[in-house]
Amino acid sequence: MAQTAISPTRAQDYPEWYQQVVRAADLAEQSPVRGCMVIKPHGYAIWERMQTILDRMFKETGHQNAYFPLFIPLSYLEQEAKHVEGFAKECAVVTHHRLELGPDGKLIPTGKLEEPLVVRPTSETIIGAMYAKWIQSWRDLPMLINQWANVVRWEMRPRVFLRTAEFLWQEGHTAHATSAEAVEETLRMLEVYATFAERDLAMPVVKGPKPAAERFPGAVDTYSIEAMMQDGKALQAGTSHFLGQNFAKAQNIKFAGTSGAEEFCWTTSWGVSTRLIGAVIMTHSDDDGLVLPPRIAPHQIVLLPIHRTDEEQALVMEACRKLQAEALVMEACRKLQAELAAQRFGDEPIRVKIDARDMRGGDKVWQHVKQGVPVRVEIGPRDLAAGAVSVTRRDRGPKDREAVPLAEFPGKAAALLGEIQQGLFDRAQAFRTERSVRLGSAAEVHEFFGAGEGAAGKGGFAHVHVADDPAVAAAFDPLKVTVRCIPMEGADEPGTCVVTGQPVSRRSVLARSY
Amino acid sequence: MAQTAISPTRAQDYPEWYQQVVRAADLAEQSPVRGCMVIKPHGYAIWERMQTILDRMFKETGHQNAYFPLFIPLSYLEQEAKHVEGFAKECAVVTHHRLELGPDGKLIPTGKLEEPLVVRPTSETIIGAMYAKWIQSWRDLPMLINQWANVVRWEMRPRVFLRTAEFLWQEGHTAHATSAEAVEETLRMLEVYATFAERDLAMPVVKGPKPAAERFPGAVDTYSIEAMMQDGKALQAGTSHFLGQNFAKAQNIKFAGTSGAEEFCWTTSWGVSTRLIGAVIMTHSDDDGLVLPPRIAPHQIVLLPIHRTDEEQALVMEACRKLQAEALVMEACRKLQAELAAQRFGDEPIRVKIDARDMRGGDKVWQHVKQGVPVRVEIGPRDLAAGAVSVTRRDRGPKDREAVPLAEFPGKAAALLGEIQQGLFDRAQAFRTERSVRLGSAAEVHEFFGAGEGAAGKGGFAHVHVADDPAVAAAFDPLKVTVRCIPMEGADEPGTCVVTGQPVSRRSVLARSY
Repeated sequence: MAQTAISPTRAQDYPEWYQQVVRAADLAEQSPVRGCMVIKPHGYAIWERMQTILDRMFKETGHQNAYFPLFIPLSYLEQEAKHVEGFAKECAVVTHHRLELGPDGKLIPTGKLEEPLVVRPTSETIIGAMYAKWIQSWRDLPMLINQWANVVRWEMRPRVFLRTAEFLWQEGHTAHATSAEAVEETLRMLEVYATFAERDLAMPVVKGPKPAAERFPGAVDTYSIEAMMQDGKALQAGTSHFLGQNFAKAQNIKFAGTSGAEEFCWTTSWGVSTRLIGAVIMTHSDDDGLVLPPRIAPHQIVLLPIHRTDEEQALVMEACRKLQAEALVMEACRKLQAELAAQRFGDEPIRVKIDARDMRGGDKVWQHVKQGVPVRVEIGPRDLAAGAVSVTRRDRGPKDREAVPLAEFPGKAAALLGEIQQGLFDRAQAFRTERSVRLGSAAEVHEFFGAGEGAAGKGGFAHVHVADDPAVAAAFDPLKVTVRCIPMEGADEPGTCVVTGQPVSRRSVLARSY
Repeated sequence: MAQTAISPTRAQDYPEWYQQVVRAADLAEQSPVRGCMVIKPHGYAIWERMQTILDRMFKETGHQNAYFPLFIPLSYLEQEAKHVEGFAKECAVVTHHRLELGPDGKLIPTGKLEEPLVVRPTSETIIGAMYAKWIQSWRDLPMLINQWANVVRWEMRPRVFLRTAEFLWQEGHTAHATSAEAVEETLRMLEVYATFAERDLAMPVVKGPKPAAERFPGAVDTYSIEAMMQDGKALQAGTSHFLGQNFAKAQNIKFAGTSGAEEFCWTTSWGVSTRLIGAVIMTHSDDDGLVLPPRIAPHQIVLLPIHRTDEEQALVMEACRKLQAEALVMEACRKLQAELAAQRFGDEPIRVKIDARDMRGGDKVWQHVKQGVPVRVEIGPRDLAAGAVSVTRRDRGPKDREAVPLAEFPGKAAALLGEIQQGLFDRAQAFRTERSVRLGSAAEVHEFFGAGEGAAGKGGFAHVHVADDPAVAAAFDPLKVTVRCIPMEGADEPGTCVVTGQPVSRRSVLARSY
């Protein structure tokens, strides 16, 4: 059996493999604060890439960024709790605003707040309160605002990137004059998310509305994008909510229409989070560690100058010749970096770094393997003499090298990155296709998913006719399988619910999920 | 007396003028959460410009971004409180992690935490705890990390941008093997801040170390940049702290040196915040509202197509001709926008927007005046016919227009923006010079600052020989004047402290401050 950089492998223990990939790639780690992670520089750089691309897409679709308070008065959530069943209760609550040093050297919270403050789990209520002030007439609409922020939802079983007490996200909040415009916005942002997932994360997604029980509390419709991880489970990678007039009525967001009559606004909200980093890891990585799609890789190409100074050196002259050779290598690397940075991949310069750290070549290479750098380029004195570089793609095996003429490489780099990007998408899509089935009865669903959770090779996406009915959720609950969404792609395909027998117009996707 | 867009004027009531400029420019407003502001899109776009420029400067000086938890365990601050006099006590304290709906419809905090959590007022302790884990050997140094984050310091007298309970900032935290390297880093980042303030914010600053009493608690040295506002007060616009080994010892941040012996690291921290937006407002704005330096203006040029559709139109033919004229105007605007965006100012494309909203031309123009857009370009059918545009600079009076040939404007735009940028700096610097004095006795200091605070035309920066001694602070406390810093520029100029008579090598800057 081949040695792998990550142990256990995916086949041996998928959840533990995930933790080890995160650790080996130096992306994040648990902090001393229960449920809160530290996002380390490499993980944060991936998030910055995601932010940069999404932020541009939000602005191109007419949105502006703003920033709203971290804290929400308890009374705001009370107002919401009245209107909303399934109100989220796991929140961090601030009750004091001062710390005093006690006689025993302990700090004591003092300065009790008259009204406790909740650390935002999401910002519909506080943003809605501002919209109620800001929106007066139809001229103020649409109101299209996004916020990049941290949010907190107390988690009993945290898991790095996938489920943490604090996480980073963006939340879009929009208000419109008509239902049709708000629905259009909801679907526009769903489409932005799907495009981002497929084009940039190379992660195929199914998009569609969720059944009533899986909606955001208070939403009329919740749409999601669902991706398949390599264990066959679904991961909800983004949501877009059509909130109807529910929040507008609860928060009194009204506008005077062209006729002068007052109406309630129609609102939406939509978000993606650092959870996407977990999704990318589980979509592409292999038993050697992280694999990053070039479009979101902090560095797309790493140049590795090869030195031999670790060897014993018998003669000073030899050392001098080596130093000279190294100087030539470094010069070639710097020249190549500049040439590559002048090339463009997508809309941007290619991101190249030179790693000239003084450490063993093998360790260095494996660090880049585990960190998922899409392309490694090794340049040594012998390569240089031959006018070539040694190129290795992260989406192929570590021994699958190719010698490329040095002068040709810059001109080929963008195409190579494009090929890797597309290859990762194709591979993920092929995997999904292989693990997707169309089933015609509840018995088949039971058979497909098997009895236990997480059995290797079990499960995937089952496309099944089911009604939006609590009986459906109940029927598949023992399997830990839920209805993820009703895919919007393709024509209607009427059928009858495999649980209730009700007529339904389309199939839904059923899966286990994160 | 000329009508101004902002009332009161600076001369009439400076603090209220500031509030009104913020309101008229639609930058931010108080939220329903005590002491917390909402940063509105125009204000946030200015912050994004600051972030973009600073982030690039941080990365160019070798720093990486990361993200650490919002919450800090109480015990971490206890550890710090032991070592630190003047420990900051006004913090938001999280004591519960669940909300339950009571029988009366009220939400009740439950799930009491075993150890309360503090919402970070700054992150030295939590980041230090991670550094203690991450740093093992000299090979791990220097550790150069920055974080963009929100922080909370309970404020009894909040003031938008200048002093708010929650604010956005960046905090750099670095660890080094030697004292000399850490001092070099401290001064490097002070220089980054000074360059950013002067080059990008067009805001002249004095930089230097602060007296002991004004240091960050636990720091060996605190350096600041101090800017003069238009009321003569100083605003501390950024700080860079040399922490020596104080934090490393408190948090056990050690490394094995090249010889193998364990040593404590030398650390630094440095930060700027959304307070800089307040500084920019108070440095450049006038009685017509916000004035923005082009380098941080979200839009540097606004194109204003001039329509006449509001007038009564007697004839259909005339309306048609007008429509045709408008189409021509819009086409000219779009062409001009594209040509301008192809020009570069600094390293970036010029940021131009077309404002074709259907509203009264006068209202529209004044909105852009109040929002501080550096250049307004009006284009109407008559201008077009003459092949010209009408250009108005925000740094000059609203009636100071210039007709510029349409074809020439794109080629001149970058130079025009550069002229405005430099002009704002020169004006601020001239103001500072005018309001700066060199004084030789305590009596002169008293005379310069007068008895009362905020008297128009009173005070400024007084360059005075003072010792780093509590007696100095006590002597000027009745004036509400403090020692801001000891300017580093220029040669030593020995003298004797005007309060204690001790010999000192340089003058300090004394001022009232925000």
